[in-house]
Order: sequence, then C-alpha cells, then structure tokens
Amino acid sequence: MIGIALMGAGRMARVHARAIPPAGAKLVAVYDLVPAAAEALAAETGAAVARSVQEAIERPDVAAVLVATSSDTHVELIGQASQAGKAVMCEKPLAPTLAEAQRCVQTLGPQGSSKVFLAFNRRFDPGHAAVKQAIEAGEIGALEQLTITSRDPFPPPLEYIPKSGGLFRDMMIHDFDMARWLLGEEPVSVFSRGSCLVDPRVGALGDVDTACVSLVTSSGKQAVILNSRRTAYGFDQRIEAFGSAGMVMSDNPRATGLKRYSGASFGAPDRFRAFFMERYGESYRREIETFVAGVAKGAPAAVSALDGLRAVYVAEAAGASLRLGKPVELKTNGEVTWDA
Amino acid sequence: MIGIALMGAGRMARVHARAIPPAGAKLVAVYDLVPAAAEALAAETGAAVARSVQEAIERPDVAAVLVATSSDTHVELIGQASQAGKAVMCEKPLAPTLAEAQRCVQTLGPQGSSKVFLAFNRRFDPGHAAVKQAIEAGEIGALEQLTITSRDPFPPPLEYIPKSGGLFRDMMIHDFDMARWLLGEEPVSVFSRGSCLVDPRVGALGDVDTACVSLVTSSGKQAVILNSRRTAYGFDQRIEAFGSAGMVMSDNPRATGLKRYSGASFGAPDRFRAFFMERYGESYRREIETFVAGVAKGAPAAVSALDGLRAVYVAEAAGASLRLGKPVELKTNGEVTWDA
Amino acid sequence: MIGIALMGAGRMARVHARAIPPAGAKLVAVYDLVPAAAEALAAETGAAVARSVQEAIERPDVAAVLVATSSDTHVELIGQASQAGKAVMCEKPLAPTLAEAQRCVQTLGPQGSSKVFLAFNRRFDPGHAAVKQAIEAGEIGALEQLTITSRDPFPPPLEYIPKSGGLFRDMMIHDFDMARWLLGEEPVSVFSRGSCLVDPRVGALGDVDTACVSLVTSSGKQAVILNSRRTAYGFDQRIEAFGSAGMVMSDNPRATGLKRYSGASFGAPDRFRAFFMERYGESYRREIETFVAGVAKGAPAAVSALDGLRAVYVAEAAGASLRLGKPVELKTNGEVTWDA
Amino acid sequence: MIGIALMGAGRMARVHARAIPPAGAKLVAVYDLVPAAAEALAAETGAAVARSVQEAIERPDVAAVLVATSSDTHVELIGQASQAGKAVMCEKPLAPTLAEAQRCVQTLGPQGSSKVFLAFNRRFDPGHAAVKQAIEAGEIGALEQLTITSRDPFPPPLEYIPKSGGLFRDMMIHDFDMARWLLGEEPVSVFSRGSCLVDPRVGALGDVDTACVSLVTSSGKQAVILNSRRTAYGFDQRIEAFGSAGMVMSDNPRATGLKRYSGASFGAPDRFRAFFMERYGESYRREIETFVAGVAKGAPAAVSALDGLRAVYVAEAAGASLRLGKPVELKTNGEVTWDA
Repeated sequence: MIGIALMGAGRMARVHARAIPPAGAKLVAVYDLVPAAAEALAAETGAAVARSVQEAIERPDVAAVLVATSSDTHVELIGQASQAGKAVMCEKPLAPTLAEAQRCVQTLGPQGSSKVFLAFNRRFDPGHAAVKQAIEAGEIGALEQLTITSRDPFPPPLEYIPKSGGLFRDMMIHDFDMARWLLGEEPVSVFSRGSCLVDPRVGALGDVDTACVSLVTSSGKQAVILNSRRTAYGFDQRIEAFGSAGMVMSDNPRATGLKRYSGASFGAPDRFRAFFMERYGESYRREIETFVAGVAKGAPAAVSALDGLRAVYVAEAAGASLRLGKPVELKTNGEVTWDA
Repeated sequence: MIGIALMGAGRMARVHARAIPPAGAKLVAVYDLVPAAAEALAAETGAAVARSVQEAIERPDVAAVLVATSSDTHVELIGQASQAGKAVMCEKPLAPTLAEAQRCVQTLGPQGSSKVFLAFNRRFDPGHAAVKQAIEAGEIGALEQLTITSRDPFPPPLEYIPKSGGLFRDMMIHDFDMARWLLGEEPVSVFSRGSCLVDPRVGALGDVDTACVSLVTSSGKQAVILNSRRTAYGFDQRIEAFGSAGMVMSDNPRATGLKRYSGASFGAPDRFRAFFMERYGESYRREIETFVAGVAKGAPAAVSALDGLRAVYVAEAAGASLRLGKPVELKTNGEVTWDA
Repeated sequence: MIGIALMGAGRMARVHARAIPPAGAKLVAVYDLVPAAAEALAAETGAAVARSVQEAIERPDVAAVLVATSSDTHVELIGQASQAGKAVMCEKPLAPTLAEAQRCVQTLGPQGSSKVFLAFNRRFDPGHAAVKQAIEAGEIGALEQLTITSRDPFPPPLEYIPKSGGLFRDMMIHDFDMARWLLGEEPVSVFSRGSCLVDPRVGALGDVDTACVSLVTSSGKQAVILNSRRTAYGFDQRIEAFGSAGMVMSDNPRATGLKRYSGASFGAPDRFRAFFMERYGESYRREIETFVAGVAKGAPAAVSALDGLRAVYVAEAAGASLRLGKPVELKTNGEVTWDA
Repeated sequence: MIGIALMGAGRMARVHARAIPPAGAKLVAVYDLVPAAAEALAAETGAAVARSVQEAIERPDVAAVLVATSSDTHVELIGQASQAGKAVMCEKPLAPTLAEAQRCVQTLGPQGSSKVFLAFNRRFDPGHAAVKQAIEAGEIGALEQLTITSRDPFPPPLEYIPKSGGLFRDMMIHDFDMARWLLGEEPVSVFSRGSCLVDPRVGALGDVDTACVSLVTSSGKQAVILNSRRTAYGFDQRIEAFGSAGMVMSDNPRATGLKRYSGASFGAPDRFRAFFMERYGESYRREIETFVAGVAKGAPAAVSALDGLRAVYVAEAAGASLRLGKPVELKTNGEVTWDA
C-alpha cells in the first residue's frame, strides 16, 4: 500500500484525491496553506490534516507526494519531497518559467528527474492513448501531419489570466506535451498566431484567447495546435494523426450513445462529456494508477520532469514567436535561441 | 439505341422519363389518357405524343415500353406490349390484386414473364444493393435477422388511400420485395400488426398507417418490416441484415457531409435526402440502365413479373393476417391458404 | 449509512458488490451456499462472512438485503428478508416461473411488493434512460413504434440453457421490462418467432437462440424485440423509439472516440464496450445508488416486484406463443389466457 | 440557349463537357491543339470540331468560351475570347505566375475581369457551400478559426510536378480560394511549412508533397491549410469553420449509407467518394449551371478573374514563405512585399 501526501486542497487537488484508486494506494495526509481547505478535504477522504509541508512529507506512512498547489510552489515542493526520498507526482506545469524549470531539473539531476512524475493526464485518456498505440503499432505508417484541437467551453475568470502565465504556458502546454509524445521527435521550430477574439480584456492583460501554433520536427513531421478559450458547444478535444499508411483520430467522446431525429435533427449524437472533470475523469484514474504502479515497482516515471521541462520550453518559445512575429528555432539540447 | 415508349405522363412517369440515360436509350413517344399531360412531357423531353396506346407501342422505333400508368391498367398494357413483341418495364405493383397478378403471369407464361421488368427500383439503390452484395460476398455469413424500416415523411392525400389498395399493397410492397430479395428464400409465414396512429380517418377508410410485419422462411431466417405513413424527420429508409459472421446496414444517406456543433448540436449530421425523388434518384437511373442493358443483350429481366406476383402475394397475405389476427401461411408454390 | 447483506457470491453478486458506492452504503456481510466463495468475496470487500441466510439477514447493521443467488431461491430469500423488515434488491428474474412469481407477489402484498427493488439494471443505463427521458419530455410526441435489439456476443455454456428457463425468461426478460417501461402501457398481445440458427444443440434442449417478438398495446403502440445469442461484433444493445414528433435511439456506446482511416476503413469508429460488465457497468452503479437512496428515504422501489412479475408474465406468454404458433393475448390484470 | 466553345479536350475539358447541363446550354464546338483529341470529344458530345482557336471563338452560335487548356495558355485565350465579346469560364489557375495573372487582370480592366468566371469548382460543392451558407446565416457567429484539409489519394506523375508550378500553385490554390471565400477577408500574412515525406524525388524537383500553411486576416481570424499528395484512404477533403457561436464541418461524404459490423468493424461507414470526378461531380454540374445562368442574365461572374489573381498571389506568397523560412506579409491591395 502506497501512502500519499497531497499538497494542496484546491480544485486540481480534489480531482486527484477523487481518482486515488481503492487498491494499492491510500491518501494519508493533506496539506494546504489554508487549513480549512485541508480540513474539508481530509474529512471527505478520511486522510489526516498536515500542519506543515514538512509534517506531510516526513510522515513514515507517506511514500509518495502529490503536488497540486499553485504553479509557483511546484519546484520548491518537488525539491523537498525528493530530498526526503519520496516519490513525487506533480501537476503541470513543472514551473511557471523556463528558467525555474531548468533549475529544477538541474537540481534533481538525471536520476532525480526520472523519479518525478509530471501529471500530463491527457496521455492517459483512453482515446488519445489509442492514437499513440495505433502509431506505435504501425497502423498509420510514418506519422506526417498531426492536428491537435483543444478548446475550452468558457474562458477562465479574468483575474486568473495574469497568474496563469498566459495561454501557451497554461492551456496549450497540454498540447505541446501531446505533440512531443505523439510525434516521437522534438520540434525544431515553432510559429505562433494569436488573437483576442473571445474577450478584448484578455488582450489588455497581455494574453491571447485564440491561437494557432505550427511545429515541425527535424525529419519534416508537421504539427498544428488550435486553441480557443471558448466554444458554444462544450469542451472540444480532438487529435488527428495522419501518416503514410492511414489516419487515426481521437474524436470527442459522447455522454451516451443517444441519437436524436426530429425536424431539425437527423441522428444528432449526444452531447460531449462536460469540462475536464467528466471528459478526462478516466485519464485521472489511469494516471494515478500508473504513478502508483511505477512507485511500487521502483520504475522511472512514465512522464518525467524532463518532459515537464521540454513542454515549458516549447510554450515559452511559442510565446516568443508570437511577440517576434516569426518562427523560433528550438534546440533539441534544450538551449533557447530566439534572443535578439 | 433502344427507343422507349412511355405509357403515362403522371408523377412516376416523369420520374422515369428524367432517368432515361443519355446513351443507349431514347424516349421516343409518350402516351397519356390526358393528352395535355402527354404533350407537356413530350415537349420537355423531345419525344413524340402518341394518340393511342397502340400507336405508341407499334411504332417501329419503339423497342421497349415503360408502363407508368395507374395500377389498374398495368396488366392490360403489359399484355399489349408483350404481344407486340416489345420489352416491358412496369411500375409496381404488377396488379392491384393477387388474382389479376396471377392471371397476368399465367397469360405471359414463364418465357413472357421473364421479359417483363418489374420496377422495384430500391433494388438499385447503391446502399441497399451494397447490402445484397455484402450478403452474397459472404461478409455477414448466413443471414439470420433482417430489419427493414420504411417510413414516409408525410401521408398521401386521404383520397389516395382507397385506390392505393392499402398500406401493404401500396407502400410495404417495396419492402416485401426487398425482404424476398435479401433473404434469398421465400417467406413461409407472415404476421401483421397494424394501427391507425397518424390519422384516424385512415382507419375509417379501412386501412392502417402504422404497421409492423414479421416474416420467417422455411430455414428459420426472420424478417421484420416497420412502416409508418409519417415521420417528423423526413424519409426514413433503412435496412439491417444480421448474420452469423457480421451485420451490414444501409442507413439513410445525407444530403451532404455537413456536421453542426452548437449549444444543442454536437456534430449533428446533415438532413436525409428528401422524399423518394431525391433519396432514390440514383436508383431510378441505375434501374433504367439495367433494363436497357438487358434489352440490348436480350437477357431476362433482373426483376421479373414473377417477382411482381410474389410481392403482391405477400402483401395480400399480410392484409389477411391483420384481418384474421393470426399468422398466415405462405406457400412457396404461390397458393393462398388463409381462408377461414 | 445503509448496511447491505449480499446473498450469493457468484458472478452477478460480484458485479453488484463492485458497484456498491463509496458513500451512503456499505457491504457488511456476504452469504453463499459455498462458504469458500463467500470468504473470497468477503476478503476482497472487507465484509464479514455470514454462516447462514438468517445470520446475514438478521444482523442489526444490515438494513438491506441484495439477492444475487440462483433464480430458484429468489422468492424464498425475498420472503425471509421482507419478514425481517429489511429492504430488498433482487436480481432478475423475480422467479423462474409465472406461478412462483405470482405467489411471491401475493405473499408480499401490495405494500411489500413496492419495497422489493427488482434489479432491471438496464433502466439505469445512461443511454436507455435518456430514451425514457426524451419520451417523458415529449421530444418524440406519442410513441408509436419501439424496436429493441439485444444480442449477446456469444452463447452461454450449453449446460446453462436448461436451468436458465430459456431465452425468453433468461435473456429477453430484460427487453420485456424495457418495452413495458418505455411503452408506458402494458402489452395486450405477444407473437413470437424463434429459430435455432446459432447452435442446433440449443434446439435439442428445447430452446431457441434467435428470436423476434412482436408486441402491441391496447392503444396500438407496436414493439419489436430482436434477440440473438451470438454476434460476430460484440454486445449489441440498441433501442429505437419512434413517435409522432420524432425518434430517439440509444445506440451502442464506444470504448473511445477513436476513428480509423485506412485502405479499408473510412472513419471506422472504435469497438463497442465489451460484454455486460463494461457495457452496463455504469447502470449497475446507478442502480444501486438509486436503491440505496430509496431505502434511505423510505421511498417505494423504482422497479418493484410487480414489475418483476409482469416481465415474467410476458416472457411466459412469449414462450406460449412460440409453442402455439399464434399470438397470445395478455390481460392487463395479470391473468393468463393462452391455455387450450 | 447558350452555345459554348470548349478550349481543350484533355482531362479537365472532359470533366466540364460532361457537366454541361441538358437545358439552357449546349456545347457547340471543341478545339484542341491535338486535332484527334478534339475530334474524339466532339464525336462523343455531338459538338463540332474547330480547326483553330479563332474559328471556335468567333462562331456566331458561341456565346461563351470555356478555357480548359494548359495553364500557360489561359491568359491568351481569356484575352481573345473577351475581345470577341464572349463570356469566359476559365479553369484554375488564372495564370502560372503572379506577374502574368496581374497582367491579365490589368488588360481586362475591372469590367472585363468581372465577366471572367474562374472555375474554383469547390465553391459549388454542396457540403462546402453549406459551410458558407451557415456562416452567412450567422449559425456560428463570427468566424474565428478555419481548418482546411485537402489530401489527394495519390501523387501526380513525377513529370507533372515541374509544369504544375508546385504544390502551392497547383493543388493548394483551391484551398487558398476556399479560405478567402469563407474568411470573408483577405489574409494579411502567410506562413508555410513544407516537407517531402511522400517521395524524395519531389524534393529533387524543387517541390514539396506535404504542406501546412497558416494564414491570418487583419481582424485576427486564423486559418490553417493541410495538404498531402497521398493518403492511404482516398480523397480527403474537409473544412472546419469555428466561430463564436458554434462550428460547422464539411466532412467527407460517403459513397452510400452502408455501415459494416464484424469482428474488426463496429459500424464502419462506407468509403469516401473516389477522386475528384466522383467527389466533386456535383460541384462541376452546379458550377456550370451557375456560369450559364449568369451569362443568360448578364450578371457578373460568381467567381471572377480577380479571385483568380488573389489566389495566385497567396500561392506565390506561400512559396516565398517556404523559401524564406518566415511569414510573408500580404497586401490587401495586391502588392507583393516579401522581396529581400
């Protein structure tokens, strides 16, 4: 039985807490800066409340630390947990900036980095994972063009925008990880388009709400990512992988198999699954199962701190491309080259 | 070039006239009881107006006669055309009653019957024909259950009901032919349910508007036919063939590949093709091409007068089953056995 | 917290045990004729092993008894649990024969019957339930034709056939309940077709493996049920409800939103969910939640012993129709009239 | 009756000849550099063979000239036909290079340009046209992101590559026109990715076979175009228009409504319509009907020479972007600015 200490009791912390599976793992402690939040979640889950980070991490019944606090605390908490010899699972992003993410990985070292599981949950979505499996099984031959569509049903509160780090670092970072994973190669160039079409106040805050990013790898594989902060039809999450021998798509799954026929509907399928909790509920369960199974076996993390760093790197380059109005070259060794 | 004389200038006659293909056949004469109707269609198509049935049939440039007049004249016109040595294509039904259909086939004899092409156009629909091809190619193994759904978008005018011969003889007759064709065996028993759910006045006229008929063959293959005179969503024409090795469906084709997404739609497909003219337009073209090609080669009709007779037989038995409230046995030799 | 005693530790008992939700209910005791089976399930779930039915039922921490033993013990266990004042949830069928089902309901009385929850889990499937909601919301106007397709991926072991009571009582009973529920009226006539197309040995055992049943209600609503013991493509579970203002279908849900394109596939959707455990997993969870919530509120069962009796009645009539080769009349007061 | 002279008797000329509708227009003359080709097509269609361009154009029964010769002759033939006062319909592209296209439009003048119908047939495809109608009807609110996927089933012969002008001018030009039309605004920037993933010999000839182009308009609307010269699953032609109030897609239409179910297929839809002749057959018919109706009414061309020029302009800019490795600015007044 793997005992887990949960850092944070906010929205994402609760998502993870609910996904902790009945067998093989147990939530033993919860810590939050706001004690009442920790207490509420502890009461709900039967876990203990930890009065400090240290208390939570150092409990002898804690083998793994799940970091789901605000982004700016991730690096610090990863460091503490790693030094205490605990396995770590950390919400994305690894760090709010590339510099901090680099420092985190340097401090951890290659060995330590491979033990930090970066929670890019979408890799564990059954549909997206089936795309990866189809690629690896050779079903589509050599991958040539990848299209990722990722649109939220509604924008976050305006006050969230500044602290989010912007669309590329907060929202599209999932898609950058997905692109890297599915391409099987690092992108070598990124070019961004960004507009404020949903809400001009987003622009006033220095961000965009509608973006389209083009990536290419050294072997010429092309990828496009489309993001919008709002749709009129729910949470739109699709992947299309086109290759020399075929194509696979991970289309939006439906709430049920219902189809409607009437004067205006001719077999209209049922609604998409609602926002990320319903849509990606299964992915959170599979993710933590994967993490726990890895910890139990002492295996390296399925998604590592290095993956977290690379995603932050692409996100930061995408932002630079938008500012500079031209493609930005990405080094596969991790160096950043768009200065000047 | 096969010259065609068209008997009739009404709705179905016009459907067929429009489908006469540009190469290999030519509409040379039109006859209708109402001269003005014949003149209008002749003007549109460049054909001559025939002043009498005889004049139309006996033209030396006429090799084939297309009978698209009212049902009660079919037998007479088939006889005249056959005696004149002309090939015949005849709209369904072969005759309004089983007795007349039997007389027609007896008079024609086996040889003559095989030269009368009965216009069950749905056999030539690309989707339905693909079901037949899949069955014949062994794709679904041995056929076990067949479901045919056939619903009109709106009922015919009430005054049409009495002269139509009723739902089984007028509407479901298409499905009886389809069932016989796809089952590859004659049904040996028919059981009918019929209700007036669309319009009680249909019931006052002695007919039903909603029906469900169950058939079985001697080897135990089961078929169900569902008919309604009205839907709220257009012309609903589907076939499902289930067998030991799989299933194929001919689903309603769409006007276009459009899909709509909005607050109430999550990929709603485009409308069905409208009533039979649009839905089965391709089948009318393929049907007449098949007929003309057969005439050119001197081949037996792809769908013969005997097929016309068998469909009328099943239709009449279905009506008897409804009246008697029990299943009616069908003889494969054509005898009728439900009396008392 | 509702304590539950589970009668039985076989396949269906395990399905229910797994669905017992984390909050509001708790599995406290398991009983099985085979002590080792009870012990295994108890160990897995943390419940106690009861050495006798009585011990399980009479535990003071048991408020509800879940009957998932073999069909021939249902009536007896329902009686014991009811007499002990415990709420009951019972697997289908209520009893192996109509006579026993009638006796059970008579003994329970109207009050007692309304407290026995009959586990027709498919009513709780999100897709099928959405059909019911659409009907009740008036989306399709007045229901006119209902088609239920229910095909298993593979037949049960031959030795199961005799004790199952046959296809109508064992398999189609789910569909009879579904038909009654969706029609909102009792059927007044049933007509059955049945064949042995999957395995002739099923016929030698006096059963059929391929069936098609036609129902009609007093107001003329028509229903068709198609069953097969085997498909080449998985578990096929569909409902089509056609009404005056539209149609809704509960189509087979997919494992994921994957679509495949290659030389032979043009957007082929992903596989169906596998056999009943995966396909109806959600329905088992919702079912027991509904049961537990009802017990907590003291509400009558959402599906009662009377529903169980009516389903057995239709099943037995369907069997009689097949034997007699004619439709069998169903009394809405529960009397059976096909004798002679 | 509009008499049409057809310039060319090659593949595209035959496509257009076959689409000339039965009413309102007539093919009266065919000219081709290779007299035998003209004779063959003339024999098939009943048109006369013209011995020279001049003879074809100056026939008094010719009201319209349909230019379907090789690209390098378009400008010359448009000029001759226009000077002779004849209406013109011209295959894409308007000219092989931007310079020639500009010269053509300048020579024609605004009045003359509006009388030259540029044959971007995809605007007349029922599915793509439905996207335009949905946008204009406000169904998706303000358009924000447009994705056009256009992939051929197999690459053209290698010897065609050099004279084609390359992927952007030969193949993606259709998509540039579609983007301009649907965006309702001129793009102001174009950025291209291009790779040789299908056949390295294409690269040796200075072209690419896999491309991804990003466009943006002055109001921030984003468009992405994906092209490949080869798929393993047929002709892939899709449009996705995402807006503030919804999304519409024009998905690949199917040959029929067939769906297959077997061990490996769970409702696999039928194949796409084959290459452009079948897929866009309807668009060719609608296109020439639109052209003929416009000529009959003296209306300006639905798609003008200016549209032809703008598409060539975007195509040439896309090529420049690929060469330069950076986005190229597009002037809405038609100037070209990427030099140096």
